[in-house]
Amino acid sequence: MSDQTIEPRVLKGFRDILPWHEAERQRIMHLLAETFARFGFVPIDTPILEYTEILLGKGGGETDKQIFRFDDNGGRDVAMRYDLTVPFARFMAAHLHELYLPFKRFHMAKAFRGENTQRGRYREFIQCDFDTVGTDCASADFEIVLMIDRAFAAMGVNGVHVHLSHRGLFNALLRAIGAGSDGEEVLRIVDKLRKIGRDRVSEELDALVGAEGRDRVLEFVDAGKVGSGRETSAGSDVNARIVDELERLVPDARAEIARLRAVVECAGALGIADRIVVDPSITRGLDYYTGIVFETFLDDLPQIGSVCSGGRYDDLASLYTKERLPGVGASIGLDRLMAGLEELGIASSSTRAADTIVLYSDEALLSRYHAIADALRSHGIAVDVYPEARKIGQQYSLAEKKGIPTAILTDADGLASGTVTVRVLSERANHDGLSIDEAAALIARVV
Amino acid sequence: MSDQTIEPRVLKGFRDILPWHEAERQRIMHLLAETFARFGFVPIDTPILEYTEILLGKGGGETDKQIFRFDDNGGRDVAMRYDLTVPFARFMAAHLHELYLPFKRFHMAKAFRGENTQRGRYREFIQCDFDTVGTDCASADFEIVLMIDRAFAAMGVNGVHVHLSHRGLFNALLRAIGAGSDGEEVLRIVDKLRKIGRDRVSEELDALVGAEGRDRVLEFVDAGKVGSGRETSAGSDVNARIVDELERLVPDARAEIARLRAVVECAGALGIADRIVVDPSITRGLDYYTGIVFETFLDDLPQIGSVCSGGRYDDLASLYTKERLPGVGASIGLDRLMAGLEELGIASSSTRAADTIVLYSDEALLSRYHAIADALRSHGIAVDVYPEARKIGQQYSLAEKKGIPTAILTDADGLASGTVTVRVLSERANHDGLSIDEAAALIARVV
Repeated sequence: MSDQTIEPRVLKGFRDILPWHEAERQRIMHLLAETFARFGFVPIDTPILEYTEILLGKGGGETDKQIFRFDDNGGRDVAMRYDLTVPFARFMAAHLHELYLPFKRFHMAKAFRGENTQRGRYREFIQCDFDTVGTDCASADFEIVLMIDRAFAAMGVNGVHVHLSHRGLFNALLRAIGAGSDGEEVLRIVDKLRKIGRDRVSEELDALVGAEGRDRVLEFVDAGKVGSGRETSAGSDVNARIVDELERLVPDARAEIARLRAVVECAGALGIADRIVVDPSITRGLDYYTGIVFETFLDDLPQIGSVCSGGRYDDLASLYTKERLPGVGASIGLDRLMAGLEELGIASSSTRAADTIVLYSDEALLSRYHAIADALRSHGIAVDVYPEARKIGQQYSLAEKKGIPTAILTDADGLASGTVTVRVLSERANHDGLSIDEAAALIARVV
Repeated sequence: MSDQTIEPRVLKGFRDILPWHEAERQRIMHLLAETFARFGFVPIDTPILEYTEILLGKGGGETDKQIFRFDDNGGRDVAMRYDLTVPFARFMAAHLHELYLPFKRFHMAKAFRGENTQRGRYREFIQCDFDTVGTDCASADFEIVLMIDRAFAAMGVNGVHVHLSHRGLFNALLRAIGAGSDGEEVLRIVDKLRKIGRDRVSEELDALVGAEGRDRVLEFVDAGKVGSGRETSAGSDVNARIVDELERLVPDARAEIARLRAVVECAGALGIADRIVVDPSITRGLDYYTGIVFETFLDDLPQIGSVCSGGRYDDLASLYTKERLPGVGASIGLDRLMAGLEELGIASSSTRAADTIVLYSDEALLSRYHAIADALRSHGIAVDVYPEARKIGQQYSLAEKKGIPTAILTDADGLASGTVTVRVLSERANHDGLSIDEAAALIARVV
């Protein structure tokens, strides 16, 4: 590095996105936005910078240490948002009078955490959140589950399973075994089932709630065994049986069982029961959920964990308003999902910068090159124009680096008669004497 | 405000974007992205947070005071980006070995400045930048001008004029009148022509460069008079005449005149000469441009100033690399443009959250409602489902608040025969006994 230039580095945990990844990321985000809009969800945006008081509320703990927080030039204590949920709660409290309820929104945007950057985590990441607030009914719960299913289908991802449970069932079980006060710790332990295995979970539970408590918790978690894990065996009948079993194990939870059953029945009626797994081991232990909870797994990439998680909560915005806002929603971590899709070969990482490139041989013809390009664009073709007269080999070389599959060659005769030559670069084949319409049709066939 | 809740406020100069604005903003951004892609421009992304050293470089001055800058938890001196140009320069220096040249990119993203928030300026705003780097040729200059024209057309904006000049011409004139060292100040004065009027500009020039210098500067600026301002009279002939006149007034600038002429000729050949105005009063005085410069005005909203400005520069990334990267590009301030489009009635601020809503009358039919909604969605219809059994008037009221133009009514007979009723809410008219296909077709006609 010369001492006269500044090293063009980025901060640890931050990164540039190169065009072939960014194009794919935008394509995926557009597909998601289209899916959400089709369900009547509307987009919003909120500031990246907020009063720290808003973002941290009464909370603290882990988030406090990870937040990017500072005093701005006006002496205000401000911070960069670390998720999209807290800003959404503030948004609802601020705009209730302008909105309607139930309100269904999605928000795809960056959030920031000064996390440990090991394990492929970034300090700047894109969250994709969607929620229905202002209603506490089975229809909204099921709609979120169906939308997750449809969203992954829209992205072309197969082998997707939404695992769902009801947090209220677990709470009823905890009360039944007299472990209500240790509830959070029990949830934390069960949450580690996938990570540390059944034996260690069993030990830890024993130590916390005794042998009988342990047995009942494990019996509860095992109720979903036929449907959980790798050897997924979802489907209407299986799910209905698991719900029956849960009803037997936790008798004092009629409303919760009814809710779970309504969602499972809808899934059956909509033909997605095979992709829904009632799985009592899903607890979202550390979150604020109170009803239905779910996580989404890709069969071919179990090791990346849940790619879309969420659930129902009692009250979104109690920090900012006395209006009670029950809701249900979920969140996709887009960066992890994109990495997964690339691993599966679904995200294409296309390097194609255009469909064709108009080659340049004569400076006097500059305006003609642009006129041809413009005419092709009106047919929906993405057209590059080589910007100056260079050797033809150099022009082909650029086309190759840009992943452009065809080239437009012109000569004086062709220009006089209004025709061009299309070269299909991979075949080294020229198609002469084509009108713009014919050229556009050929290029559309090739790309 | 109760002392138990936190006031849900946002920081001064920041704002929430409500769904009807955000949907429109995303629609506009998608149209722009499509246009850019059609010209072979590719998207990139860079971090919002960077090393302060990177963002401020050797610079300072105004930007320093306005930047959101702090020490992160790791003690690094960091700042939020205040534009997309500096991060792009750093990006090019960092990734040159992975990219090709010329490189054509666009970037639509947020930037942050702690500016005075009067005059409708925001501290968080979306920039939309596009540049071609790695070439210094007329083709790239013209392509940017053509793309601006096509981008506004794609947005449905008429009455758009790109005013262009060549900064090198002005520099040659300054040398000719011996005002080379006062160049920046002269540019600053001329730049105020639209704001403070010709008389005051004349006075200020007189004081700075004397009567003869003043006269030659004003003569130069006036050369574009027929083409500038409200009484726009653009077109091939007019532009060619202005270029001839500039050649006469600044004899020692052959290359600059040739470049301007090439761009004007291309505009004529592409049929956009009427929307291009050679206007020597455009200087982009305070910027780092060295070649072609341009600003874009909307005929119907002259008071909002340029909505898309840019030009050619000698070297993008000299702070970070010794590789010389000449380029040309422009930037749209999306927030100002959106405000303008709303004023013109072009941005629709649509409040329509969905095309139709399935009404809810019987809890036992929940899964049927969702099945109907899902079937309509597969026809491309955006469908909401009223989430619980409520009085029909309440359901219509929500549809109205959400701007949903039609509703789906069902009854047991219809469900048995697989038909629904579509109600067109504005006409209070029911269309009975429709299959899903027929219902979808009717809704598509109404919306």
